[in-house]
Amino acid sequence: MFLLCDSVSNGRPLYTQDMPGALYLVATPIGNLEDITYRAVRTLSEADLIACEDTRQTRKLLDHYGIHKPTVSYHEHNEAERAEELAARLLGGLTIALVTDAGMPLVSDPG
Amino acid sequence: MFLLCDSVSNGRPLYTQDMPGALYLVATPIGNLEDITYRAVRTLSEADLIACEDTRQTRKLLDHYGIHKPTVSYHEHNEAERAEELAARLLGGLTIALVTDAGMPLVSDPG
Repeated sequence: MFLLCDSVSNGRPLYTQDMPGALYLVATPIGNLEDITYRAVRTLSEADLIACEDTRQTRKLLDHYGIHKPTVSYHEHNEAERAEELAARLLGGLTIALVTDAGMPLVSDPG
Repeated sequence: MFLLCDSVSNGRPLYTQDMPGALYLVATPIGNLEDITYRAVRTLSEADLIACEDTRQTRKLLDHYGIHKPTVSYHEHNEAERAEELAARLLGGLTIALVTDAGMPLVSDPG
């Protein structure tokens, strides 16, 4: 969230009452596909867009749970340009879920 | 697992290849009932018996996920006698899931 805020608002928080979009950080399994919570699966199912470290890797998880939502790559090599695009979509009202290949984005990423 | 082993075998591990029973430590939500993994729900669903800190508290979780398995109380006030009984059931081949009111039994119990 910090990166998204920082890239379009010079560090000011983007969130206002006029902003209907939301960014969810979703923890994903680190080995066993069953090691994911019901809330995480629901959040992925309800998101408009899923930003992934590696879309092919995340697709395995989404397919396992029958989640058919669009994905977009978002990783260290495209962060600069992609962050602005994702922030614009959030401002446009989209709900975006951010995941890494495994673990909790920005907190614990053992993948 | 340690307590169960210790109470009936003077510290020797109970597990042998002849022992078909199994004890699972299952982490439960600390506030939001959706914060439980698919593997945890499956383990509870497949257990023969669920040993609970407070059976009424755990029943709320089990009801939420439609799990109809017998429960037995197992907490600090009945640990001495109950441990031996549970160990005997494990030796008899039962699969037992151990839970606390919230969190991970023996690891993190914030309840």
